[in-house]
Amino acid sequence: MSTVIDVPETSKNVKGRAISNPRPSGWKKGIAIMDFILRLGAIASALGAAATMATSDETLPFFTQFFQFEASYDSFSTFQFFVITMAFVGGYLVLSLPFSVIMIMRPCAAGPKLFLIILDTVFLTLATSSGAAATAIVYLAHNGNQDSNWLAICNQFGDFCQQISEAVVASFVAVVVLLLLVVMSAVTLPN
Amino acid sequence: MSTVIDVPETSKNVKGRAISNPRPSGWKKGIAIMDFILRLGAIASALGAAATMATSDETLPFFTQFFQFEASYDSFSTFQFFVITMAFVGGYLVLSLPFSVIMIMRPCAAGPKLFLIILDTVFLTLATSSGAAATAIVYLAHNGNQDSNWLAICNQFGDFCQQISEAVVASFVAVVVLLLLVVMSAVTLPN
Repeated sequence: MSTVIDVPETSKNVKGRAISNPRPSGWKKGIAIMDFILRLGAIASALGAAATMATSDETLPFFTQFFQFEASYDSFSTFQFFVITMAFVGGYLVLSLPFSVIMIMRPCAAGPKLFLIILDTVFLTLATSSGAAATAIVYLAHNGNQDSNWLAICNQFGDFCQQISEAVVASFVAVVVLLLLVVMSAVTLPN
Repeated sequence: MSTVIDVPETSKNVKGRAISNPRPSGWKKGIAIMDFILRLGAIASALGAAATMATSDETLPFFTQFFQFEASYDSFSTFQFFVITMAFVGGYLVLSLPFSVIMIMRPCAAGPKLFLIILDTVFLTLATSSGAAATAIVYLAHNGNQDSNWLAICNQFGDFCQQISEAVVASFVAVVVLLLLVVMSAVTLPN
Protein backbone atom coordinates (compact mmCIF):
# COMPACT_ATOMS: atom_id res chain seq x y z
CA MET A 1 0.00 0.00 0.00
CA SER A 2 2.89 2.35 0.75
CA THR A 3 3.97 2.25 -2.88
CA VAL A 4 0.50 3.21 -4.01
CA ILE A 5 0.37 6.22 -1.70
CA ASP A 6 3.90 7.35 -2.50
CA VAL A 7 3.36 7.42 -6.24
CA PRO A 8 1.38 10.67 -6.58
CA GLU A 9 3.84 12.50 -4.32
CA THR A 10 6.72 11.41 -6.53
CA SER A 11 4.80 12.49 -9.61
CA LYS A 12 4.06 15.84 -8.03
CA ASN A 13 7.73 16.44 -7.28
CA VAL A 14 8.73 15.86 -10.89
CA LYS A 15 5.67 17.58 -12.32
CA GLY A 16 7.74 20.38 -13.78
CA ARG A 17 9.86 18.05 -15.87
CA ALA A 18 7.17 15.42 -16.49
CA ILE A 19 6.99 16.19 -20.20
CA SER A 20 10.72 16.08 -20.81
CA ASN A 21 11.30 13.09 -18.54
CA PRO A 22 9.89 9.91 -20.13
CA ARG A 23 10.02 7.82 -16.94
CA PRO A 24 6.61 8.59 -15.30
CA SER A 25 4.91 8.34 -18.67
CA GLY A 26 6.69 5.03 -19.41
CA TRP A 27 5.55 3.60 -16.10
CA LYS A 28 1.96 4.56 -16.91
CA LYS A 29 2.31 3.14 -20.41
CA GLY A 30 3.32 -0.24 -18.95
CA ILE A 31 0.19 -0.23 -16.77
CA ALA A 32 -1.91 0.77 -19.80
CA ILE A 33 -0.57 -2.17 -21.83
CA MET A 34 -1.26 -4.52 -18.90
CA ASP A 35 -4.77 -3.00 -18.75
CA PHE A 36 -5.33 -3.95 -22.40
CA ILE A 37 -4.09 -7.53 -21.87
CA LEU A 38 -6.17 -7.98 -18.69
CA ARG A 39 -9.20 -6.65 -20.55
CA LEU A 40 -8.77 -9.38 -23.18
CA GLY A 41 -8.66 -11.97 -20.37
CA ALA A 42 -11.79 -10.50 -18.79
CA ILE A 43 -13.61 -10.63 -22.14
CA ALA A 44 -12.72 -14.31 -22.50
CA SER A 45 -13.88 -15.20 -18.99
CA ALA A 46 -17.08 -13.12 -19.09
CA LEU A 47 -18.19 -14.46 -22.46
CA GLY A 48 -17.01 -17.94 -21.48
CA ALA A 49 -19.11 -17.77 -18.32
CA ALA A 50 -22.17 -16.64 -20.30
CA ALA A 51 -21.70 -19.36 -22.92
CA THR A 52 -21.05 -22.13 -20.39
CA MET A 53 -24.15 -21.19 -18.41
CA ALA A 54 -26.30 -20.76 -21.52
CA THR A 55 -25.45 -24.23 -22.84
CA SER A 56 -25.99 -25.99 -19.50
CA ASP A 57 -28.73 -28.52 -20.10
CA GLU A 58 -29.19 -32.07 -18.91
CA THR A 59 -31.94 -34.52 -19.67
CA LEU A 60 -32.22 -37.51 -17.41
CA PRO A 61 -32.98 -40.97 -18.82
CA PHE A 62 -35.45 -41.55 -15.98
CA PHE A 63 -37.72 -39.54 -13.71
CA THR A 64 -38.88 -39.80 -10.13
CA GLN A 65 -41.85 -38.48 -8.25
CA PHE A 66 -40.09 -35.21 -7.40
CA PHE A 67 -37.74 -34.43 -10.28
CA GLN A 68 -38.57 -33.73 -13.87
CA PHE A 69 -36.82 -34.91 -17.01
CA GLU A 70 -34.71 -31.88 -17.72
CA ALA A 71 -32.58 -29.29 -15.96
CA SER A 72 -31.47 -26.25 -17.90
CA TYR A 73 -30.28 -22.76 -17.04
CA ASP A 74 -33.66 -21.22 -17.82
CA SER A 75 -35.26 -23.20 -15.01
CA PHE A 76 -33.71 -20.60 -12.68
CA SER A 77 -34.31 -16.90 -13.19
CA THR A 78 -31.01 -16.24 -11.38
CA PHE A 79 -29.15 -18.12 -14.10
CA GLN A 80 -31.02 -16.22 -16.82
CA PHE A 81 -29.90 -13.00 -15.14
CA PHE A 82 -26.38 -14.43 -15.03
CA VAL A 83 -26.29 -15.14 -18.77
CA ILE A 84 -27.68 -11.72 -19.72
CA THR A 85 -25.40 -9.84 -17.32
CA MET A 86 -22.24 -11.69 -18.31
CA ALA A 87 -23.01 -11.12 -22.00
CA PHE A 88 -23.46 -7.40 -21.22
CA VAL A 89 -20.18 -7.27 -19.31
CA GLY A 90 -18.37 -9.04 -22.14
CA GLY A 91 -19.89 -6.64 -24.66
CA TYR A 92 -18.91 -3.62 -22.60
CA LEU A 93 -15.35 -4.91 -22.26
CA VAL A 94 -15.09 -5.33 -26.05
CA LEU A 95 -16.34 -1.76 -26.54
CA SER A 96 -13.86 -0.51 -23.92
CA LEU A 97 -10.86 -1.82 -25.87
CA PRO A 98 -10.51 1.35 -28.03
CA PHE A 99 -10.35 3.47 -24.86
CA SER A 100 -7.68 1.15 -23.51
CA VAL A 101 -5.73 1.69 -26.74
CA ILE A 102 -6.07 5.47 -26.27
CA MET A 103 -4.65 5.03 -22.76
CA ILE A 104 -1.62 3.23 -24.25
CA MET A 105 -1.06 6.02 -26.79
CA ARG A 106 -1.66 8.84 -24.31
CA PRO A 107 -0.76 7.43 -20.87
CA CYS A 108 -1.15 10.79 -19.09
CA ALA A 109 -4.61 11.74 -20.43
CA ALA A 110 -7.06 11.71 -17.52
CA GLY A 111 -10.28 11.77 -19.59
CA PRO A 112 -10.40 8.20 -20.97
CA LYS A 113 -9.05 6.85 -17.68
CA LEU A 114 -11.86 8.49 -15.68
CA PHE A 115 -14.40 7.24 -18.20
CA LEU A 116 -13.07 3.69 -17.87
CA ILE A 117 -12.83 3.80 -14.06
CA ILE A 118 -16.46 4.82 -13.70
CA LEU A 119 -17.84 2.32 -16.24
CA ASP A 120 -15.51 -0.45 -14.98
CA THR A 121 -16.84 0.09 -11.46
CA VAL A 122 -20.44 -0.08 -12.64
CA PHE A 123 -19.86 -3.27 -14.62
CA LEU A 124 -17.78 -4.72 -11.78
CA THR A 125 -20.86 -4.32 -9.57
CA LEU A 126 -23.06 -5.90 -12.23
CA ALA A 127 -20.71 -8.88 -12.74
CA THR A 128 -20.30 -9.37 -8.98
CA SER A 129 -24.03 -9.34 -8.35
CA SER A 130 -24.82 -11.92 -11.02
CA GLY A 131 -21.84 -14.10 -10.06
CA ALA A 132 -22.75 -14.04 -6.36
CA ALA A 133 -26.46 -14.70 -6.98
CA ALA A 134 -25.60 -17.67 -9.21
CA THR A 135 -23.16 -18.92 -6.57
CA ALA A 136 -25.89 -18.91 -3.94
CA ILE A 137 -28.08 -21.10 -6.18
CA VAL A 138 -25.19 -23.39 -7.16
CA TYR A 139 -24.41 -23.86 -3.47
CA LEU A 140 -28.06 -24.79 -2.83
CA ALA A 141 -28.02 -27.19 -5.79
CA HIS A 142 -24.95 -28.91 -4.34
CA ASN A 143 -25.88 -28.95 -0.65
CA GLY A 144 -29.60 -28.22 -0.41
CA ASN A 145 -31.07 -26.73 2.74
CA GLN A 146 -32.58 -28.88 5.43
CA ASP A 147 -34.54 -26.24 7.31
CA SER A 148 -36.54 -25.19 4.26
CA ASN A 149 -36.62 -28.74 2.87
CA TRP A 150 -34.86 -27.79 -0.37
CA LEU A 151 -33.11 -30.96 -1.55
CA ALA A 152 -29.78 -31.01 -3.36
CA ILE A 153 -30.37 -31.64 -7.06
CA CYS A 154 -26.75 -32.37 -7.97
CA ASN A 155 -27.18 -36.07 -7.18
CA GLN A 156 -29.59 -36.25 -10.10
CA PHE A 157 -28.13 -33.58 -12.39
CA GLY A 158 -24.39 -34.12 -12.05
CA ASP A 159 -23.31 -32.76 -15.44
CA PHE A 160 -25.61 -29.75 -15.15
CA CYS A 161 -24.13 -28.90 -11.75
CA GLN A 162 -20.62 -29.30 -13.10
CA GLN A 163 -21.33 -26.86 -15.90
CA ILE A 164 -23.01 -24.17 -13.78
CA SER A 165 -20.14 -24.41 -11.27
CA GLU A 166 -17.64 -23.79 -14.08
CA ALA A 167 -19.65 -20.79 -15.27
CA VAL A 168 -19.62 -19.33 -11.75
CA VAL A 169 -15.85 -19.79 -11.45
CA ALA A 170 -15.34 -18.07 -14.81
CA SER A 171 -17.45 -15.15 -13.61
CA PHE A 172 -15.23 -14.86 -10.51
CA VAL A 173 -12.19 -14.56 -12.77
CA ALA A 174 -13.93 -11.74 -14.65
CA VAL A 175 -14.77 -10.01 -11.35
CA VAL A 176 -11.20 -10.22 -10.05
CA VAL A 177 -9.80 -8.88 -13.34
CA LEU A 178 -12.32 -5.99 -13.35
CA LEU A 179 -11.32 -5.17 -9.75
CA LEU A 180 -7.66 -5.12 -10.83
CA LEU A 181 -8.52 -2.86 -13.80
CA VAL A 182 -10.24 -0.33 -11.52
CA VAL A 183 -7.32 -0.31 -9.06
CA MET A 184 -4.74 0.00 -11.86
CA SER A 185 -6.60 2.90 -13.50
CA ALA A 186 -6.99 4.64 -10.13
CA VAL A 187 -3.27 4.33 -9.35
CA THR A 188 -2.28 5.93 -12.66
CA LEU A 189 -4.90 8.69 -12.48
CA PRO A 190 -3.14 11.40 -10.40
CA ASN A 191 -0.85 13.50 -12.57
CA MET B 1 -20.65 12.09 -19.10
CA SER B 2 -19.23 15.08 -20.95
CA THR B 3 -18.92 17.03 -17.71
CA VAL B 4 -16.90 14.24 -16.18
CA ILE B 5 -14.48 14.13 -19.08
CA ASP B 6 -14.14 17.88 -19.31
CA VAL B 7 -13.15 18.34 -15.69
CA PRO B 8 -9.51 17.15 -15.83
CA GLU B 9 -8.86 19.25 -18.93
CA THR B 10 -10.10 22.35 -17.15
CA SER B 11 -7.95 21.50 -14.16
CA LYS B 12 -4.95 21.03 -16.40
CA ASN B 13 -5.44 24.43 -17.98
CA VAL B 14 -5.44 26.18 -14.62
CA LYS B 15 -2.75 23.97 -13.14
CA GLY B 16 -0.27 26.80 -12.92
CA ARG B 17 -2.53 28.93 -10.72
CA ALA B 18 -4.25 26.09 -8.90
CA ILE B 19 -2.71 27.01 -5.56
CA SER B 20 -3.59 30.68 -5.71
CA ASN B 21 -7.06 30.14 -7.21
CA PRO B 22 -9.42 28.72 -4.56
CA ARG B 23 -12.12 27.62 -7.01
CA PRO B 24 -10.96 24.11 -8.04
CA SER B 25 -10.11 23.33 -4.42
CA GLY B 26 -13.52 24.58 -3.24
CA TRP B 27 -15.27 22.36 -5.77
CA LYS B 28 -13.33 19.37 -4.49
CA LYS B 29 -14.03 20.35 -0.89
CA GLY B 30 -17.79 20.25 -1.59
CA ILE B 31 -17.45 16.73 -3.00
CA ALA B 32 -15.34 15.73 0.03
CA ILE B 33 -18.04 16.96 2.44
CA MET B 34 -20.68 15.08 0.44
CA ASP B 35 -18.40 12.01 0.62
CA PHE B 36 -18.41 12.25 4.43
CA ILE B 37 -22.21 12.57 4.62
CA LEU B 38 -22.78 9.70 2.17
CA ARG B 39 -20.37 7.59 4.20
CA LEU B 40 -22.52 8.14 7.31
CA GLY B 41 -25.56 7.00 5.32
CA ALA B 42 -23.72 3.92 4.09
CA ILE B 43 -22.67 3.05 7.66
CA ALA B 44 -26.31 3.25 8.78
CA SER B 45 -27.60 1.07 5.94
CA ALA B 46 -24.79 -1.53 6.15
CA LEU B 47 -25.08 -1.95 9.92
CA GLY B 48 -28.87 -1.77 9.66
CA ALA B 49 -28.83 -4.56 7.07
CA ALA B 50 -26.58 -6.71 9.26
CA ALA B 51 -28.72 -6.11 12.36
CA THR B 52 -32.03 -6.72 10.56
CA MET B 53 -30.77 -9.97 9.10
CA ALA B 54 -29.17 -11.12 12.37
CA THR B 55 -32.39 -10.64 14.33
CA SER B 56 -34.61 -12.38 11.77
CA ASP B 57 -36.18 -15.31 13.57
CA GLU B 58 -39.64 -16.77 13.45
CA THR B 59 -41.12 -19.66 15.37
CA LEU B 60 -44.34 -21.12 14.09
CA PRO B 61 -47.11 -22.15 16.48
CA PHE B 62 -47.62 -25.34 14.48
CA PHE B 63 -45.60 -27.69 12.29
CA THR B 64 -46.28 -29.76 9.24
CA GLN B 65 -44.65 -32.79 7.73
CA PHE B 66 -42.20 -30.69 5.72
CA PHE B 67 -41.47 -27.57 7.73
CA GLN B 68 -39.85 -27.28 11.11
CA PHE B 69 -40.76 -25.04 14.01
CA GLU B 70 -38.29 -22.25 13.44
CA ALA B 71 -36.75 -20.19 10.66
CA SER B 72 -33.76 -18.02 11.46
CA TYR B 73 -30.96 -16.44 9.48
CA ASP B 74 -28.47 -19.13 10.53
CA SER B 75 -30.52 -21.76 8.72
CA PHE B 76 -28.95 -20.41 5.53
CA SER B 77 -25.19 -20.09 5.16
CA THR B 78 -25.78 -17.33 2.60
CA PHE B 79 -27.48 -15.22 5.27
CA GLN B 80 -24.64 -15.89 7.73
CA PHE B 81 -22.23 -14.65 5.06
CA PHE B 82 -24.50 -11.63 4.60
CA VAL B 83 -24.43 -10.70 8.30
CA ILE B 84 -20.65 -11.09 8.59
CA THR B 85 -19.94 -9.19 5.35
CA MET B 86 -22.29 -6.31 6.12
CA ALA B 87 -20.80 -5.96 9.61
CA PHE B 88 -17.34 -5.86 7.99
CA VAL B 89 -18.43 -3.24 5.46
CA GLY B 90 -19.98 -1.13 8.24
CA GLY B 91 -16.81 -1.44 10.31
CA TYR B 92 -14.62 -0.46 7.36
CA LEU B 93 -16.81 2.57 6.64
CA VAL B 94 -16.50 3.73 10.26
CA LEU B 95 -12.71 3.36 10.05
CA SER B 96 -12.68 5.26 6.73
CA LEU B 97 -14.28 8.36 8.29
CA PRO B 98 -10.93 9.86 9.42
CA PHE B 99 -9.62 9.60 5.86
CA SER B 100 -12.77 11.32 4.64
CA VAL B 101 -12.08 14.13 7.13
CA ILE B 102 -8.51 14.40 5.79
CA MET B 103 -10.01 14.75 2.30
CA ILE B 104 -12.16 17.65 3.54
CA MET B 105 -9.14 19.38 5.08
CA ARG B 106 -6.83 18.72 2.12
CA PRO B 107 -9.11 18.40 -0.94
CA CYS B 108 -6.19 18.22 -3.40
CA ALA B 109 -4.16 15.48 -1.67
CA ALA B 110 -4.16 12.40 -3.90
CA GLY B 111 -2.87 9.90 -1.30
CA PRO B 112 -5.92 9.46 0.96
CA LYS B 113 -8.21 9.63 -2.06
CA LEU B 114 -6.39 6.76 -3.79
CA PHE B 115 -6.39 4.78 -0.57
CA LEU B 116 -10.16 5.26 -0.22
CA ILE B 117 -10.91 4.49 -3.89
CA ILE B 118 -9.08 1.17 -3.74
CA LEU B 119 -10.58 0.05 -0.41
CA ASP B 120 -14.04 1.38 -1.36
CA THR B 121 -13.93 -0.70 -4.54
CA VAL B 122 -12.93 -3.83 -2.63
CA PHE B 123 -15.69 -3.38 -0.05
CA LEU B 124 -18.17 -2.46 -2.79
CA THR B 125 -17.47 -5.86 -4.34
CA LEU B 126 -17.86 -7.55 -0.95
CA ALA B 127 -21.16 -5.78 -0.20
CA THR B 128 -22.50 -6.48 -3.69
CA SER B 129 -21.66 -10.18 -3.52
CA SER B 130 -23.36 -10.71 -0.16
CA GLY B 131 -26.37 -8.59 -1.12
CA ALA B 132 -26.84 -10.40 -4.43
CA ALA B 133 -26.40 -13.86 -2.90
CA ALA B 134 -28.95 -13.07 -0.20
CA THR B 135 -31.30 -11.69 -2.88
CA ALA B 136 -31.15 -14.97 -4.79
CA ILE B 137 -32.17 -16.88 -1.65
CA VAL B 138 -34.89 -14.35 -0.72
CA TYR B 139 -36.28 -14.69 -4.24
CA LEU B 140 -36.36 -18.47 -3.85
CA ALA B 141 -38.02 -18.14 -0.44
CA HIS B 142 -40.73 -15.97 -1.97
CA ASN B 143 -41.29 -17.81 -5.26
CA GLY B 144 -39.71 -21.22 -4.91
CA ASN B 145 -38.57 -23.16 -7.97
CA GLN B 146 -40.77 -25.73 -9.63
CA ASP B 147 -38.16 -27.54 -11.69
CA SER B 148 -36.03 -28.42 -8.68
CA ASN B 149 -39.07 -28.85 -6.41
CA TRP B 150 -37.96 -26.13 -3.98
CA LEU B 151 -41.16 -24.82 -2.38
CA ALA B 152 -41.67 -21.19 -1.36
CA ILE B 153 -41.37 -20.92 2.42
CA CYS B 154 -42.79 -17.40 2.72
CA ASN B 155 -46.34 -18.73 3.05
CA GLN B 156 -45.29 -20.28 6.34
CA PHE B 157 -42.69 -17.78 7.49
CA GLY B 158 -44.21 -14.43 6.52
CA ASP B 159 -42.52 -12.26 9.15
CA PHE B 160 -39.15 -13.91 8.57
CA CYS B 161 -39.41 -13.23 4.83
CA GLN B 162 -40.41 -9.63 5.48
CA GLN B 163 -37.35 -9.09 7.64
CA ILE B 164 -34.83 -10.70 5.28
CA SER B 165 -36.29 -8.70 2.39
CA GLU B 166 -35.76 -5.48 4.35
CA ALA B 167 -32.17 -6.47 5.09
CA VAL B 168 -31.52 -7.07 1.39
CA VAL B 169 -32.99 -3.68 0.44
CA ALA B 170 -30.79 -1.98 3.07
CA SER B 171 -27.74 -3.72 1.59
CA PHE B 172 -28.68 -2.37 -1.86
CA VAL B 173 -28.69 1.16 -0.44
CA ALA B 174 -25.19 0.57 0.95
CA VAL B 175 -24.03 -0.76 -2.44
CA VAL B 176 -25.39 2.25 -4.34
CA VAL B 177 -23.79 4.69 -1.89
CA LEU B 178 -20.44 2.88 -2.11
CA LEU B 179 -20.65 3.03 -5.91
CA LEU B 180 -21.31 6.79 -5.68
CA LEU B 181 -18.35 7.19 -3.31
CA VAL B 182 -15.99 5.47 -5.75
CA VAL B 183 -17.21 7.58 -8.68
CA MET B 184 -16.98 10.83 -6.66
CA SER B 185 -13.45 10.06 -5.48
CA ALA B 186 -12.40 9.14 -9.03
CA VAL B 187 -13.79 12.39 -10.47
CA THR B 188 -11.85 14.51 -7.97
CA LEU B 189 -8.61 12.53 -8.33
CA PRO B 190 -6.92 14.18 -11.36
CA ASN B 191 -5.03 17.30 -10.31
